[in-house]
Amino acid sequence: MNNLQYEFGMVGLGVMGQNLMLNIADHNFSVIGLDLDPFKAAAVEEEAGADKQVRGTIYVDEFVRSIRKPRAVMLLVPAGKPVDAAIATLLPLLEPGDIVVDGGNSYFPDTERRVLELEKKGVHFFGMGVSGGEKGARFGPSMMPGGNREAYERLRPVFEAIAAKVDGEPCVAYLGSGSAGNYVKMVHNGIEYGIMQLIAETYDLLKRGAGFSDDELQNIFQEWNNTELQSFLIEITGEILSKMDDETGQRLVTMISDRARSKGTGKWTSQNAMDLQVPVPTIDMAVLMRDMSKYKEDRVEAAKALPNDAPVLDVNRTELVDQMRNAFYFAMISTYAQGLAQLTAASESYKYGLNLQDVAKIWRGGCIIRAACLSDIRAAYAANPQLPTLLLDPKIGSDLLARQADLREILKAAIDRGIPMPAFMASLAYFDAYRSETLPTNLIQAQRDYFGAHTYERVDREGIFHTQWN
Amino acid sequence: MNNLQYEFGMVGLGVMGQNLMLNIADHNFSVIGLDLDPFKAAAVEEEAGADKQVRGTIYVDEFVRSIRKPRAVMLLVPAGKPVDAAIATLLPLLEPGDIVVDGGNSYFPDTERRVLELEKKGVHFFGMGVSGGEKGARFGPSMMPGGNREAYERLRPVFEAIAAKVDGEPCVAYLGSGSAGNYVKMVHNGIEYGIMQLIAETYDLLKRGAGFSDDELQNIFQEWNNTELQSFLIEITGEILSKMDDETGQRLVTMISDRARSKGTGKWTSQNAMDLQVPVPTIDMAVLMRDMSKYKEDRVEAAKALPNDAPVLDVNRTELVDQMRNAFYFAMISTYAQGLAQLTAASESYKYGLNLQDVAKIWRGGCIIRAACLSDIRAAYAANPQLPTLLLDPKIGSDLLARQADLREILKAAIDRGIPMPAFMASLAYFDAYRSETLPTNLIQAQRDYFGAHTYERVDREGIFHTQWN
Repeated sequence: MNNLQYEFGMVGLGVMGQNLMLNIADHNFSVIGLDLDPFKAAAVEEEAGADKQVRGTIYVDEFVRSIRKPRAVMLLVPAGKPVDAAIATLLPLLEPGDIVVDGGNSYFPDTERRVLELEKKGVHFFGMGVSGGEKGARFGPSMMPGGNREAYERLRPVFEAIAAKVDGEPCVAYLGSGSAGNYVKMVHNGIEYGIMQLIAETYDLLKRGAGFSDDELQNIFQEWNNTELQSFLIEITGEILSKMDDETGQRLVTMISDRARSKGTGKWTSQNAMDLQVPVPTIDMAVLMRDMSKYKEDRVEAAKALPNDAPVLDVNRTELVDQMRNAFYFAMISTYAQGLAQLTAASESYKYGLNLQDVAKIWRGGCIIRAACLSDIRAAYAANPQLPTLLLDPKIGSDLLARQADLREILKAAIDRGIPMPAFMASLAYFDAYRSETLPTNLIQAQRDYFGAHTYERVDREGIFHTQWN
Repeated sequence: MNNLQYEFGMVGLGVMGQNLMLNIADHNFSVIGLDLDPFKAAAVEEEAGADKQVRGTIYVDEFVRSIRKPRAVMLLVPAGKPVDAAIATLLPLLEPGDIVVDGGNSYFPDTERRVLELEKKGVHFFGMGVSGGEKGARFGPSMMPGGNREAYERLRPVFEAIAAKVDGEPCVAYLGSGSAGNYVKMVHNGIEYGIMQLIAETYDLLKRGAGFSDDELQNIFQEWNNTELQSFLIEITGEILSKMDDETGQRLVTMISDRARSKGTGKWTSQNAMDLQVPVPTIDMAVLMRDMSKYKEDRVEAAKALPNDAPVLDVNRTELVDQMRNAFYFAMISTYAQGLAQLTAASESYKYGLNLQDVAKIWRGGCIIRAACLSDIRAAYAANPQLPTLLLDPKIGSDLLARQADLREILKAAIDRGIPMPAFMASLAYFDAYRSETLPTNLIQAQRDYFGAHTYERVDREGIFHTQWN
């Protein structure tokens, strides 16, 4: 026991919680952690070493009493009931003006509910997305906090100190009210699903489609990380492809089952996009292909019953890799455009007050979707904070126009070869639909009026019309 | 007032309710209708004529008292609160063994709740999808009832009499327990969204992509209705394209705004498919393109900023139409396969006990997605009730193999011309992914393990593994 008033409190000392505490201590803030497991409580003190003001405890009263008021407490416990349980434990001991930050991947409506519940006691509740995994938590994550703007000032010094830095700027910013932080993190993860699926399709087209060897694929991804594709996900793909399996001597990736799992944030992104009527087709297809991967037995059977007899692509390999790189850039930008458009719609629907320039800024470092292209994206929203879609930014628009032909060639090759590239297809369809002044949905309105008397609008004058079609 | 005990009661005498009453009366059943609006209550009697045993009333006590026990009451009121309000009005007057059938497009979890609520009083609640629009209601709809199997016997004679008939078989069957009926209708509507979007994309490729005139398009759809594409939606598309606008002398469809609307059942289908982890990409893209159509101002701006300079397709027009017809057939079957796979998964998750042969049977007539191909689909499930996917039926599989090359040609043409065909693309990607014994999702699992320590499975032995990748 000691009488120090700690600057910050952390609840849940798993790897993420412990690493964030160590990160906080590295920046000379005092921090106390709470965990029911005495080994975890002890471990964080040991990891930090004696020269750091780090304490771990299993006693909630000591924990709360030891934090400087107004208290700043962060939860790093699994989303769902554990968050409510942690709040229930803390709340009787907290005082008006105290702050509770949920650093997990909570579903944003849960955060809205908790904000209202804690408000009754004058306690500020923040939902904060934290991205970067274990390593990010230890050495600099990207953090996406949402909640009460004034209360954020109590958190800002710690968060700006521990966040990843890009060009000296911290990858954290107050994003907006209510569940804004969780929402932005959810869409971050949706974009992450999209880009991961694009990488997987790229790997499939080059390997199964065109016969590239694993050696070649490893080099391609490693080289791409020195181009405009530079990004965390491209970087780790190069590393993954180079990793050998000690047991078999094969590349480890080839020994991994193709049944992909997911934890739900991508699905939430797609489902909520449908509620908001925002098209995010690349994310939809990424969520869907993880589901498709689970039907392994059926796929094995279908592969026999419906064999793919198309020959391996007979193309200029250097040209194919160049086309693929441009296609990837196009599709990646299309994915960011979709996700950011979803944030625009969500900010309006949920009154978050998001500033997309800030979102792009804090995604540049620390997080899973950090990428060189986010500087262009940030610049686009700096130039026009009201930009309805990234596609309408002049620089980004011309980048897409310059690369569209290569994406079209890649897709035609995939179609000939029978390689499924739904995420790339969706990325192009998004672009082609968005730049269609007129879509054929007038025919859908006519059909709806024909069979259901659902009425329609006209192009030449106001009003609601119904026709007796037959 | 009279003392006749009516065979059937209808609540809500809008067009659908009135038409169903008249349909029931045509088949020599007595029927009483309840509506708060005295004009509607009177209108149904007048429409029926004096020789029919049809009564309309505004008094709920007379209505309930006049129905033969156990009572059969059907609600045709808007989904949501009106259904709960109607139940609240009726329930105090109903007795154990009575049956309430909700004939609207209720969201299936609402039906589950209502089943439990009415069960407390011993009243059987049915959710029943009804498809076919006003005309179907009057002369023969497709009806998808779910609820208590024994109680269905009380409803069967009326429902089998009024349903559409195909080859003498009624397009109604007991489908399963709980919300099975609403669920099947929801997926029916999801498939309907998919096929409507496929038709819209076909229209766009032929018109904008290849320069076909409205005269030609009208003929193409009318001719297609005499081929294997024969279906209600193809038929009405031919009629729609032939309809002239009295005001302008133009084809009416060209005067209709391309902002498409929707009432939510397609979205529910996609969102629930994601919950069940069933891929339904064509339906997803159909829902999405209605959303995309609403961004009209942005699309107009993007059409200027990102002009589509691709020339109109220079192809053999007869060949293109043949390819398009085969491509459409392929994509339509893919859409049915997706929806039926969703029903398979839902039946397992929600314990509906669905028989997909029955579903295909009752979709052959009366409903919006009625189509000649449903006979093949029914035969597929008759031959193998456990068929995991339509793609694995030998006849359907060979139909798809025979047509895949044409779909590939169509998509390559669309990609060159810049015509968005996301629903066709999704239909092909579904096929190509389903017949991929190995998908590149192993790379996604490796990435997830790299940045989030999410672990992976191996192809060569059981277990859960984690690697320190860098």
